[in-house]
Amino acid sequence: MKQKDPKLGDMPAEDFRRYGYEIVDWIANYFEHIDEFPVLSQVQPGWLKDSQPKSPPESGEDFGDVLKDMDRLILPAVTHWNHPNFHGLFSTSTSSVGVFGEMFAAAFDMKAMLWRTSPASTELEDVVLDWLRQMMNLPDEFEGIIYDTASVSTMHAIAAARDRANLKIRELGMSGRDDLPLLRVYCSEHVHSSIDKAVITLGLGTRSLRKIAVNERFEMIPEALADAIDEDVENGFVPICVVPTIGTTSSTSVDPVDAIADICEKHGIWLHVDAAYAGSAAIVPELQHYFKGCERADSIVTNPHKWLFTPFDLSVLYCRDLDELKRAFSLVPEYLKTSDESTVKNGMDYGIQLGRRFRALKLWFVMRYFGREGLIDRIREHCRLANLFASWVEASPNFEMLAPVPFALVCFRACPSDVDDLDALNERIMNDINASGEAYLSHTKLNGKFTLRLSVGSIRVEEKHLMKVWELLNQAVT
Amino acid sequence: MKQKDPKLGDMPAEDFRRYGYEIVDWIANYFEHIDEFPVLSQVQPGWLKDSQPKSPPESGEDFGDVLKDMDRLILPAVTHWNHPNFHGLFSTSTSSVGVFGEMFAAAFDMKAMLWRTSPASTELEDVVLDWLRQMMNLPDEFEGIIYDTASVSTMHAIAAARDRANLKIRELGMSGRDDLPLLRVYCSEHVHSSIDKAVITLGLGTRSLRKIAVNERFEMIPEALADAIDEDVENGFVPICVVPTIGTTSSTSVDPVDAIADICEKHGIWLHVDAAYAGSAAIVPELQHYFKGCERADSIVTNPHKWLFTPFDLSVLYCRDLDELKRAFSLVPEYLKTSDESTVKNGMDYGIQLGRRFRALKLWFVMRYFGREGLIDRIREHCRLANLFASWVEASPNFEMLAPVPFALVCFRACPSDVDDLDALNERIMNDINASGEAYLSHTKLNGKFTLRLSVGSIRVEEKHLMKVWELLNQAVT
Repeated sequence: MKQKDPKLGDMPAEDFRRYGYEIVDWIANYFEHIDEFPVLSQVQPGWLKDSQPKSPPESGEDFGDVLKDMDRLILPAVTHWNHPNFHGLFSTSTSSVGVFGEMFAAAFDMKAMLWRTSPASTELEDVVLDWLRQMMNLPDEFEGIIYDTASVSTMHAIAAARDRANLKIRELGMSGRDDLPLLRVYCSEHVHSSIDKAVITLGLGTRSLRKIAVNERFEMIPEALADAIDEDVENGFVPICVVPTIGTTSSTSVDPVDAIADICEKHGIWLHVDAAYAGSAAIVPELQHYFKGCERADSIVTNPHKWLFTPFDLSVLYCRDLDELKRAFSLVPEYLKTSDESTVKNGMDYGIQLGRRFRALKLWFVMRYFGREGLIDRIREHCRLANLFASWVEASPNFEMLAPVPFALVCFRACPSDVDDLDALNERIMNDINASGEAYLSHTKLNGKFTLRLSVGSIRVEEKHLMKVWELLNQAVT
Repeated sequence: MKQKDPKLGDMPAEDFRRYGYEIVDWIANYFEHIDEFPVLSQVQPGWLKDSQPKSPPESGEDFGDVLKDMDRLILPAVTHWNHPNFHGLFSTSTSSVGVFGEMFAAAFDMKAMLWRTSPASTELEDVVLDWLRQMMNLPDEFEGIIYDTASVSTMHAIAAARDRANLKIRELGMSGRDDLPLLRVYCSEHVHSSIDKAVITLGLGTRSLRKIAVNERFEMIPEALADAIDEDVENGFVPICVVPTIGTTSSTSVDPVDAIADICEKHGIWLHVDAAYAGSAAIVPELQHYFKGCERADSIVTNPHKWLFTPFDLSVLYCRDLDELKRAFSLVPEYLKTSDESTVKNGMDYGIQLGRRFRALKLWFVMRYFGREGLIDRIREHCRLANLFASWVEASPNFEMLAPVPFALVCFRACPSDVDDLDALNERIMNDINASGEAYLSHTKLNGKFTLRLSVGSIRVEEKHLMKVWELLNQAVT
């Protein structure tokens, strides 16, 4: 479409094509050669910032010049999450078709607030979430909603739990009341910090979060949970939610959801399962036993953007009764009223965010391009590689395992017999490897021990990448 | 990178190139012919959902087949936000270079939680937010953070305000306490529903939100605010935040921020300005007078994804003292501890979301490609077009204006002298035009009158598009 005023309008179509092709080539090339880059960016803090003008550009630039800066300025400051040797935190698993999904989503720029502003996004979301539900072997009645991150998914789940307690908090709030008992949320000592942030945000406060002890496998002890709840109830407190984790961030330990569900049922407490990382593994038949009890949950969060080959962000919250979420958050002002309200699903009714990106498209691409089999094969291979690495650790006199490996994360440390301060040694080893750019490992503390974490999850990871890390580690201890 | 097992790994690079080019062409073609589509999708609820298999695909498909479905299944179910005749809600302003930004962001898949996991994202965010701050003429001390949506930005601002009240809410929460007075948040009757959702989420409850009366121009009356606060203080309540809006959703009215700032200063109340829509207009010199008083705010939210040619999502929260946000939300578990914590900015410290997309890149592209001048020219043109349309309304005996036009939204209605029920007439006119697919208008209620809203904001909108709407409207009343 030509603009009358050449100064106005968008980039001409021929330029969009030319630069678009160039970017596709750039990304293809980037993916092909990604393992030649240092995993962690090697720049010093401030390097990129200092390269930029202090004031905004006054006139427009040729986009070709902007693109040149991708190599010159941006790339050196990128930590390569898609590098097959990115083993820190949890690895990311983006795929090419996921990138395609984001291209379309950005071009459409739909905001999936109302069905009518985004039928495609609203309905495709229902389709892919039902497919994923079936793949994860969750019950029929579970219905999902897509958010950006697990932190936001979990916050919404706990907000719905807070409302179920029937204390008129949506209307009256919690301040200026003397009739409101202390509300409690329970999780294990190994819970993700997003739960802490959720109780802070929701006005429950950090004291509302009771962290339950774990056993030697870092799994929540159900008896300790039951005792804590009994004690709280005796004190007049109101338990509103229990958040067990399948695949904790520190060690991917698995809380016993089935036993915890017994306790929740007895007291009528909302059971929210945090499977942000490991949820994707529920599609693998031989791993489904780890998810026993999830079918009894009120809600469960899983992040396809972590381990289901989908670019960030796409977090899914499944609820047994999605209407509870709607009751907690729905609110329709005049300017958003439509004639079709009663017959359609409007995404905005299920959370704090009004506009919602067309995230379902990338997951639809991923599911169709890889198929259920292809997704299972890839996750299964990641688990095989992690267990292979664990077997090397176990066979070595210089290293030891520090946690079981239910999924694709290995927790271990160097323990050569001639070193006293193993914490210092392992921290040095990690920092040296990370500084080299050859691989990225992160750490945690397990039983007070500085623990190396090796996560396997890139779509590009192969045995040779783990062998490289193993060599680096062995060089470091000898 | 070749995979040993051909079943595993990502799409081959040659396929990525081939399909990538095809998608670039598809999008270029889509943008060129976008005004040939019906603005609102013409499909019936359930159409897309019913087209899909009930079970997930078992085996992977050729991606070429998936792409074919973009035309066959997705496109008919798309409401075209980028259509130049999308005048409902607030128009969207995505540009081609914004789409390019999202392509790179998806390929990198960085999570900007820690500086070290994303130096490029972390530092570029500071750069573009400082540029935007200068363009908006905000004081030096304002520092920003990027979130997904204004709803989330505002929720964080009110959370920080809640903490400033010094009532130990982060730690103790608000339940089980009898020492906590009722906390109050103030806004006008015309505030966006995101403020209501924020007080619900934060546990303050809807009763904590006191809505202040507006004058005949739909602007908050400062005297009414002062009286409400005095009354609340006398009752022992604690005012924590006032949220004036510059560019309300219903009518883009402008609350008198400067006068409101006087009241906030007197009581030490957090002043959060909602400029989600209109903030982009602050870069236009002759519109800056509408933002008088913002320099005295504690925080201000603006959405470049609304009117600064940046694809959804990218919302900016500026704070006078960003450390207040950090104190409200920072929480660093062992597995996220790094050696560089004290010297760098870690995005995760400023909010509930841990992972954060590389959103700054698209805004950097937009600012460099258009330059300050190009952005001003486009927003100025939108305002000119809206005022031109308003002049047609004013000159017509069959239509009347229902609100002033400070920015690029026209609130009006048909009022032919021979019709009694004007609400029914205008609702019918709107529904007929929307059903035709020729244009999309939305509505609100102003002084109890059903009001048509025409938003001008597409990067493709020209005078001819407004003339088309004007013709449709005139046909409808005669």
